Amino acid sequence: MSAIQALSQRGNPTDLYSRFSSFTAARDLMAADLYPFFLPLEGGEGPTVRRDGRTLIMCGSNNYLGLTGHPEVLAAARSALDRYGSSRTGSRFLNGNTDLHQELEAELADYLGKPAALVMSTGYQTNLGVLGTVLTPRDYVVLDRSAHASLLDGCRLSGAKVRWFPHNDPEGLRRTLERIPDEAGRLVVVDGVYSMEGDVCDLPAVVKMCSAYGARLLLDDAHGLGVLAEGRGTAAHFGLTDEVDLITVTFSKSLASLGGAVAGSEEAIHYLRHHARSLMFSASTTPTNAAAALAALRLLRARPELATAVQANAAYVRRGLAEAGVRSTPSSTPIVSLPTPGALETLTTWQRLLHDGVYVNPVLPPAAEPRLRTSYMASHTLDQLDRVVEACAAQDALLERPGNEGRSVSVA
Amino acid sequence: MSAIQALSQRGNPTDLYSRFSSFTAARDLMAADLYPFFLPLEGGEGPTVRRDGRTLIMCGSNNYLGLTGHPEVLAAARSALDRYGSSRTGSRFLNGNTDLHQELEAELADYLGKPAALVMSTGYQTNLGVLGTVLTPRDYVVLDRSAHASLLDGCRLSGAKVRWFPHNDPEGLRRTLERIPDEAGRLVVVDGVYSMEGDVCDLPAVVKMCSAYGARLLLDDAHGLGVLAEGRGTAAHFGLTDEVDLITVTFSKSLASLGGAVAGSEEAIHYLRHHARSLMFSASTTPTNAAAALAALRLLRARPELATAVQANAAYVRRGLAEAGVRSTPSSTPIVSLPTPGALETLTTWQRLLHDGVYVNPVLPPAAEPRLRTSYMASHTLDQLDRVVEACAAQDALLERPGNEGRSVSVA
Repeated sequence: MSAIQALSQRGNPTDLYSRFSSFTAARDLMAADLYPFFLPLEGGEGPTVRRDGRTLIMCGSNNYLGLTGHPEVLAAARSALDRYGSSRTGSRFLNGNTDLHQELEAELADYLGKPAALVMSTGYQTNLGVLGTVLTPRDYVVLDRSAHASLLDGCRLSGAKVRWFPHNDPEGLRRTLERIPDEAGRLVVVDGVYSMEGDVCDLPAVVKMCSAYGARLLLDDAHGLGVLAEGRGTAAHFGLTDEVDLITVTFSKSLASLGGAVAGSEEAIHYLRHHARSLMFSASTTPTNAAAALAALRLLRARPELATAVQANAAYVRRGLAEAGVRSTPSSTPIVSLPTPGALETLTTWQRLLHDGVYVNPVLPPAAEPRLRTSYMASHTLDQLDRVVEACAAQDALLERPGNEGRSVSVA
Repeated sequence: MSAIQALSQRGNPTDLYSRFSSFTAARDLMAADLYPFFLPLEGGEGPTVRRDGRTLIMCGSNNYLGLTGHPEVLAAARSALDRYGSSRTGSRFLNGNTDLHQELEAELADYLGKPAALVMSTGYQTNLGVLGTVLTPRDYVVLDRSAHASLLDGCRLSGAKVRWFPHNDPEGLRRTLERIPDEAGRLVVVDGVYSMEGDVCDLPAVVKMCSAYGARLLLDDAHGLGVLAEGRGTAAHFGLTDEVDLITVTFSKSLASLGGAVAGSEEAIHYLRHHARSLMFSASTTPTNAAAALAALRLLRARPELATAVQANAAYVRRGLAEAGVRSTPSSTPIVSLPTPGALETLTTWQRLLHDGVYVNPVLPPAAEPRLRTSYMASHTLDQLDRVVEACAAQDALLERPGNEGRSVSVA
């Protein structure tokens, strides 16, 4: 996608629309019958999905616990619809708040091990609201090079000085922190589980650096919640919940909904409630979305084996792929990335897998090195996973062989 | 709320958390029993709402057509829940797109009179995504002084040079456009209906200025859709749909849901689909939210008298308030603002109205001059509206009398 962006930065600067006509990359892919984006899927998103009447094994979802079709989640959403209606038509700050939103906040805070939490309408808006509020233009913010796009957008919105450190490299973080002026505020921002690589943040080392250099720490645990530490996420996995200042989570992965939340100290959350623009100037999470997330959270809490199951499924696939000679990046989470030699092979392999009945996500440079991002669910059967491994093993571009392994798999 | 912000810009700059502890304004209001924010409401949000077991007449909602509890809207949301599950757990760019999202886009584009539309997860994210993409740091963007906060945030995210013109003042817009360097790209950004004032943009004059100065025009019609031109909004009201380049709308007002969309040329929408970060890096609208918005849109289209009804209700209230000697700002929409002499009177009057069974929204400087923002629904009964007028007429601070009218009611 960002290759597309690079191609389109041309055109006549005095008419904003001139840059639209010079953007041809997507239409070129369509003409070549290799366009992989906005594929409309039909019906539910479980371990399988429907597309043009065919059934595909779904290996491109963040529905890690498979709860988007769970009867208790659906019943809770239905009941919220009956009780509260389809929308609150306003900001939680004013008319859009309900007892349901507050219940969700209290249970999230408790589950994440923090005194308070604040629910917003999307995960993206949560990161924008938190970073846009906590940081000022006088501050420095230091991000992992692979941090999620919403974190960067939040930093940009704040006007803070943005610095990067090499992906999951604590010594690189140290060097970056060392160069920040003594008198400046500083925040370190990491993902718990990195969305493209599927690797886990070296949180103990990051916490040590933050402590040594007086930096506050924000952890985006979008992909860790529901997965690590029987679901409690990355901070709990390392026993470092108290050392992380702010934890942000999304509802659109393990929690089977849409929305986001930030958890932290009472004081921090109180401040964010009264300053975060993406909260104050946006309509509240719909009751159905809030109720679905709350039901999923309660299921996760009652059944930690869901988190264990998705991890076991991913481990099963990784073993299968390794035995079949398929290359994958190191991961200990449900995200397993399969490098391809180049962008063209990403697209052609994506298409062949789709033809073979397996949906995966294509990733193109410069977002990351070319790859297929696969991800797994607690609800995949071993038979389905065997078929995925078999389909991948039939793709030349994915195999451990001369010509394929020569390229770097690290993120640019 | 922004008064609160101003109070909190203190503290030790080397620890980001020090600014949290110096923020006391909200706690002070709580201690004085005058805290008006995040009031948790129970049950549905129709012409009445429930709070602590009491029934309040709801005059602080954007549920203009009263559709959040409409049987067809609820049935559509329920059916989408059964068919698609509670979430798509991914971006529409990748795994999160469905035929339902595409159906909604096609019907929105058609209703708004534009060739194409793009649906995003919130109205806030729509404005961020559109402005953050269309504008570059080389461009100038000119906003009405009362433009919605999400529009400013989108401009900030883009890095474009932000200029303001006095609220709804075409000559002020001309002066601002005149000062933009010839070689720079330029975009004018207006609301169709201003959220605080309730007045309608002078779109014919704005279009003329854009044409004279070669600027593209974005219209945020959050509060115009469903209200003006039998629902079709501000551009249709003036017969200027073709002259507006981009129309953004939200689903969390007349469309009884959560989400947003931008409508424009095929080329512009195609470009936005492949570049808008708030779309690409955020999970898709949930099926329930998309289905509720689509059902509301179809109701609006089939029953333009809904838009007429909310306008008639607002006109009825305005007449009643004028006859009772209650001051209100000029408006021809469902938003009727009642100025108060100061912020303290905003809070005490808000509280008295709540006690008398009427929910309204308090607005404090510097967001706008102190006022109570009231808004009406197609589903309010005349009896309910009479009771609202009566309750307002009993409030000294709202009356046309010496000491009250001395203050400006224009936005700072």
